[in-house]
Amino acid sequence: MGEDLLLRNVRPMGRAAVDVLIQAGRIAAQGPTLTAPPGIATEDGRGMLLLPGLVEAHTHLDKSLWGMPYQPNIAGPRLIDKIDNERALKRAWDIDPARQSARQVVQSIRMGSTHIRSHVDVDTDHGLWGIEGVMATREAYRDAITMDIVAFPQSGIIRRPGTAELMDAALALGAEHVGGIDPCAIDRDPKGHLDVVFGLSQKHGRPVDIHLHEPGEMGAFSMDLIIERTRALGMAGKVTISHAFCLGSPDRDLVDPLLAELAALDIAIMTTGPAARPAPPVRRLVEMGIRICAGSDGIRDTWGPYGNADMLERAMFIGLRNNFRRDEEVEIAFAVCTTGGAAVMRLDGYGTDIGCVADLLVLPGATITDAVVTRPARAFVIKHGRVVSRDGQALVSAP
Amino acid sequence: MGEDLLLRNVRPMGRAAVDVLIQAGRIAAQGPTLTAPPGIATEDGRGMLLLPGLVEAHTHLDKSLWGMPYQPNIAGPRLIDKIDNERALKRAWDIDPARQSARQVVQSIRMGSTHIRSHVDVDTDHGLWGIEGVMATREAYRDAITMDIVAFPQSGIIRRPGTAELMDAALALGAEHVGGIDPCAIDRDPKGHLDVVFGLSQKHGRPVDIHLHEPGEMGAFSMDLIIERTRALGMAGKVTISHAFCLGSPDRDLVDPLLAELAALDIAIMTTGPAARPAPPVRRLVEMGIRICAGSDGIRDTWGPYGNADMLERAMFIGLRNNFRRDEEVEIAFAVCTTGGAAVMRLDGYGTDIGCVADLLVLPGATITDAVVTRPARAFVIKHGRVVSRDGQALVSAP
Repeated sequence: MGEDLLLRNVRPMGRAAVDVLIQAGRIAAQGPTLTAPPGIATEDGRGMLLLPGLVEAHTHLDKSLWGMPYQPNIAGPRLIDKIDNERALKRAWDIDPARQSARQVVQSIRMGSTHIRSHVDVDTDHGLWGIEGVMATREAYRDAITMDIVAFPQSGIIRRPGTAELMDAALALGAEHVGGIDPCAIDRDPKGHLDVVFGLSQKHGRPVDIHLHEPGEMGAFSMDLIIERTRALGMAGKVTISHAFCLGSPDRDLVDPLLAELAALDIAIMTTGPAARPAPPVRRLVEMGIRICAGSDGIRDTWGPYGNADMLERAMFIGLRNNFRRDEEVEIAFAVCTTGGAAVMRLDGYGTDIGCVADLLVLPGATITDAVVTRPARAFVIKHGRVVSRDGQALVSAP
Repeated sequence: MGEDLLLRNVRPMGRAAVDVLIQAGRIAAQGPTLTAPPGIATEDGRGMLLLPGLVEAHTHLDKSLWGMPYQPNIAGPRLIDKIDNERALKRAWDIDPARQSARQVVQSIRMGSTHIRSHVDVDTDHGLWGIEGVMATREAYRDAITMDIVAFPQSGIIRRPGTAELMDAALALGAEHVGGIDPCAIDRDPKGHLDVVFGLSQKHGRPVDIHLHEPGEMGAFSMDLIIERTRALGMAGKVTISHAFCLGSPDRDLVDPLLAELAALDIAIMTTGPAARPAPPVRRLVEMGIRICAGSDGIRDTWGPYGNADMLERAMFIGLRNNFRRDEEVEIAFAVCTTGGAAVMRLDGYGTDIGCVADLLVLPGATITDAVVTRPARAFVIKHGRVVSRDGQALVSAP
């Protein structure tokens, strides 16, 4: 379903200004001066940029503290410190996944994201609290944003018996993807971990999206195990590896064979453009045809205070991390946050061309690069032809 | 000189709300409810944070494209490509240092910087165009912001004969610091380069601030040469090394002796928190008592499109680059952009305590960390007791 809308005087991807006619939620026509069909809603784009909706391809909607009273950040330095700290605080601070995911979703909408893939915690302390909460939010905001859910074993699978069964239940309930995390470093049993992840994938016929923070040789080993299973199970095109810090190793002898395998098996990569970690070399991945997307990861949560769910700012971070300075390079970072996300989330009809779904963004800026570095308030965010945010203010609200 | 002002209901550094009385540009009193002296200007802080003015300790005021029509970024990948491209474009695009420095200064003021150290190009193509332009801006905005000027041989000294003489003239004209750049990598004659830099420093009795992008062993060698001259000339406390990427090497055997020498000779370090480069480990430097400051570096110039002169955003970049997540850590990043800059620029009476110069910032936020990660519009920026920006809008303007 979708709406009709005539968007006057916008510059698709920074090109010359046109009018854009949207009918039944799709772009039906573009031209210098279109005749308005009788009674159609019209918006004046005032010569602004028209861009495809931003794709938030990796976040954690269930655990943000967005909109809650300020809490000092106290987690310890190790990954496991943050995991254990968070699990303990969820009930203590009442980080309700339904409420908090709604708040983050509204923030995402006003920042211009039209699609979200969210990893959602599944663990033996909290069961399906997260999955149920985020599913409720997905339903409540379905006309304003499209969401994918990954059942995510944040606290590990093998080290916390009962988690595999909860993952199974989460997938039965409606999560579309099987998550995983650091098969060596967190679960300390890479074979055991990946057998559960890929086993659930086979059982439910669902794709996989695995967090892999492991650096260097350890990460390369885990990635190799993922590659092996992807090939053996005929899952080409159905696996995403998030973070993939090991691909940021300066050791080309380690990285190049992995990249070749990722390309051959169409395994996708997600990066946040992390400033403090080795990061996948974005340009090389793009040149090799490896699908690469981006995400905010957790925003304002017990892991740390950063983040605002602005995927235009994320494009800037990716540009800064990869030392992208020429416009053509900054446009790669932008593509990661738009078409890259669409390719990973397998979105049909994504873009600003005639025939595309009208999931769109209108904002000031001379060029795409200009928009990425200035990150102005979004004049319009449009979902299926309907204006869902205007002048930086979402037209939907959260509890 | 300075003004009188009563600032009601502000929280210095996030502590309990007080009134702050400013007299003759200095903080004269603080207390829960101060009696207003007759006729004094009063502003309502509405319970917001009171912070010391941000210190922009490394930028390039003479070369920003801020406010000019959008130009695609086209410079090549190497440092020397960017240097040569910029020198050629200065006249072609009319990047007038007086006009452009005024524009960036106004942007800095609205973002809450109260002090700037600017490196300003000196080269044989453009002579003292930059120095004269930035000196004119300094004079024009002297009541709104305090500025230091570094005579900066961007294009090298030895490789471009005549530059040393121009540096000498710039120092005679009013630049307070002797700049330098990559003695090995750019000038390819480290002894020759540093002999000129330290020779000019001795002749004019001025401190030194050297750009050192050289990584790893090469950078360590150049740094060692700088350390040697600092010791030999008795210049402890009078040298700053900007960027210092070599300190971001993972090789502790390389880095630790350098840090010990920097501490012993009170040599300061400037970092931008670069995401794509090795970076000085901020926490270790702070713990060793090494003065460390931060800067925006060039914003929106021919080197690249990034930057907005927001030193609160810079604190966020430094936090992200150093993986600072706990509040106490993010506060270190903030300190680098405030007290760190003040220590490097040798500012007297810097801070929010009674007796300090009233160079202040009022903005929404629960804590310092909250302000760093949300980067809200600045409600008030105050220079010597005078409000120079309000609600994100500077009360001074640029051509």
